[in-house]
Amino acid sequence: MAKANLVVGQSGGPTAVINNSLVGVIHQALAEDQIDGIYGMLHGIRGVMDENFVDLRRESAQTLEQLRTTPGSALGTVRYKVKPEDYDRLLDVFVKYDIRYFMYIGGNDSMDTVYQIGQVAKQRNFELHSIGVPKTIDNDLAQTDHSPGYGSAARFVAMAIRNSGYDTESMGADGPFKLMEIMGRNAGWLTAASALARESEYDPPHLIYLPERRISPEKLAADAEEVYREHGYCVVAVSEGIVDENGQPYASATGRTMRDAFGHEVKQGVVEAVAEIILAKTNIRARFDKPSYLQRSFIQLASPVDQEEAYRAGIEGVRHAVNGASGQMISFVREPGPEYAIRYELADLSQIANQEHTVSDEYINAAGNGVTQDFMDYVRPLIGPPLPSFARLAKHAVAKR
Amino acid sequence: MAKANLVVGQSGGPTAVINNSLVGVIHQALAEDQIDGIYGMLHGIRGVMDENFVDLRRESAQTLEQLRTTPGSALGTVRYKVKPEDYDRLLDVFVKYDIRYFMYIGGNDSMDTVYQIGQVAKQRNFELHSIGVPKTIDNDLAQTDHSPGYGSAARFVAMAIRNSGYDTESMGADGPFKLMEIMGRNAGWLTAASALARESEYDPPHLIYLPERRISPEKLAADAEEVYREHGYCVVAVSEGIVDENGQPYASATGRTMRDAFGHEVKQGVVEAVAEIILAKTNIRARFDKPSYLQRSFIQLASPVDQEEAYRAGIEGVRHAVNGASGQMISFVREPGPEYAIRYELADLSQIANQEHTVSDEYINAAGNGVTQDFMDYVRPLIGPPLPSFARLAKHAVAKR
Repeated sequence: MAKANLVVGQSGGPTAVINNSLVGVIHQALAEDQIDGIYGMLHGIRGVMDENFVDLRRESAQTLEQLRTTPGSALGTVRYKVKPEDYDRLLDVFVKYDIRYFMYIGGNDSMDTVYQIGQVAKQRNFELHSIGVPKTIDNDLAQTDHSPGYGSAARFVAMAIRNSGYDTESMGADGPFKLMEIMGRNAGWLTAASALARESEYDPPHLIYLPERRISPEKLAADAEEVYREHGYCVVAVSEGIVDENGQPYASATGRTMRDAFGHEVKQGVVEAVAEIILAKTNIRARFDKPSYLQRSFIQLASPVDQEEAYRAGIEGVRHAVNGASGQMISFVREPGPEYAIRYELADLSQIANQEHTVSDEYINAAGNGVTQDFMDYVRPLIGPPLPSFARLAKHAVAKR
Repeated sequence: MAKANLVVGQSGGPTAVINNSLVGVIHQALAEDQIDGIYGMLHGIRGVMDENFVDLRRESAQTLEQLRTTPGSALGTVRYKVKPEDYDRLLDVFVKYDIRYFMYIGGNDSMDTVYQIGQVAKQRNFELHSIGVPKTIDNDLAQTDHSPGYGSAARFVAMAIRNSGYDTESMGADGPFKLMEIMGRNAGWLTAASALARESEYDPPHLIYLPERRISPEKLAADAEEVYREHGYCVVAVSEGIVDENGQPYASATGRTMRDAFGHEVKQGVVEAVAEIILAKTNIRARFDKPSYLQRSFIQLASPVDQEEAYRAGIEGVRHAVNGASGQMISFVREPGPEYAIRYELADLSQIANQEHTVSDEYINAAGNGVTQDFMDYVRPLIGPPLPSFARLAKHAVAKR
């Protein structure tokens, strides 16, 4: 193929390491003779529709290096769901700008976009190499061992639970219940990763609730009370997407719907609902943290493994596109053996687009309030070095007089 | 004075560095010949009432060193408000255990406890050296330049705003409003510190609301809309204690009171109320972060200045007690001159107990939605080294075809 232009975009929620994938794409594109212009689309696919491209060849090496430790999506991102009638327009733009390499860094929806646009290109007989570069803190992409962004969010969540757990432990009877609401509406991977906070089996989080297992308010309250009675405090990791025994979200299930002064129904937060349930059972007000967007932007706690893999995914994407691949996503395959290692392969987007990979059964404990050793073995290498250890006083009692 | 025992306790909300003060007390007590037993009270003053003491001489040097990077209050903390009738009982215990050095690490309420117990000791003619070691992320203690715990919480909040700000900036039209609820019910010091996130005047936080200035919902919404129109996004740092034009808390002001399905009044969160106000004005749903207890426990982002000062405050407390001081608190006095330096003095507890030092007028801008340069000069040295810088793409436009 003659020289042609490459365009790269970022889509969906940012992660702490998504700019590593962008920099990987740019670095590899700079190294490939077949690539002429290296364009960035501003705010994802919307930048293509509006022909808002920036020239990434003109960015300084220093900026690119610093982007590897900058959160957010440096090109701007988008949540626009591409409509069937948009694809012709998108391809028109690619034709007009001689864009034959399309690298899209994103999650499920974005992979669908990459797939669809590849199909339209085929129909119109336009040689386009469209490659998806996976990105999601939710870790819910199919056909890959895991996705860049997850390891860093997991490291942040584990550290946050360990920190907040020590704080809660010291409160004793004056604040024994702590809840943390963790992202992932349909997939509990990130909530499950909170288990990495534990150094012993008595450490927080004592309970972990994922969207994959229904949990009745009664059972949840009983679980929490039991832990409190046993340990004197109880730290709970709660997915934002947990559902009750009828499959109803906690955030809006009957009895927990909130109304403002005008009578409008307001969606109550999940931890607020759980706190209400614990209050009703124990007469103790639970405290909670909602780190929300800090989970996907806390670059200071990024996993070095994740940073490097996100970068590599960008590099591999360009390499494969130039070698003729299209309609595929960079897929992480874990090498067998005791040492953690990843092989980068390609997976068909038709198997990925709009799929949702939730937490597997063998990773959730029988009681539905924790994770298994298999899950720990899966997740541990992804967050990089062990979390820093904390100390507890030995507390040798002074004899009473 | 003959050799006597020392007791140390921790009180109120933990901070990321409160264990540094504990270790400072222990290290200095170990060095003082006049001190015999070094006791820790479990869960603050409650440990005295219940005679729950631990022998801190038996803790290993390694544990003490590791406690300097461990959040929470290692001895356990307490929120119990001591009643007048308790003081005789407390002194009885001190007499029984020959405790003549009383070091209490805490905030306003705790300083009152130290003061009162000192008064009772005087009345009963018992030689007691009671010293307060300041601690509070709220920074609301009087008679001191600042308090240990504040610098680290300030560093966390600034970093969190910078991280979440880059995330928000990249969302563009798909999520332009970000609110962060910051601790400090009556004093806005910590919320004000969010301004440290800025590298340029256009950077987040664009608006800062403190409890010290009333702000009407109308003005707040107009402020936010104006920033959004000018910059394309708007990041707001909101104290949990902001009040409207009538002095009513946002969390419960009329029109924003929430009721659950049983009709019970539920206190709505502050950022939820602000989000509602912005939605009504702009028809855009604001996103928010509530890092809550992470603000006081995120040791990984502690200020090294704060860690060292918290440790020194513990050391100075014991030194002064052994030298005969009592009924006083370790006070931080800033040395004049261009280089930041602190001198440790003593301040009378009668001037501190139950006082609340709020943000001074000259630190708040005229519009009541930001801080002044004077405040920046005050706060900058407290968080230690500058925050790590991030990069933005230069975004050279590709000519349209």
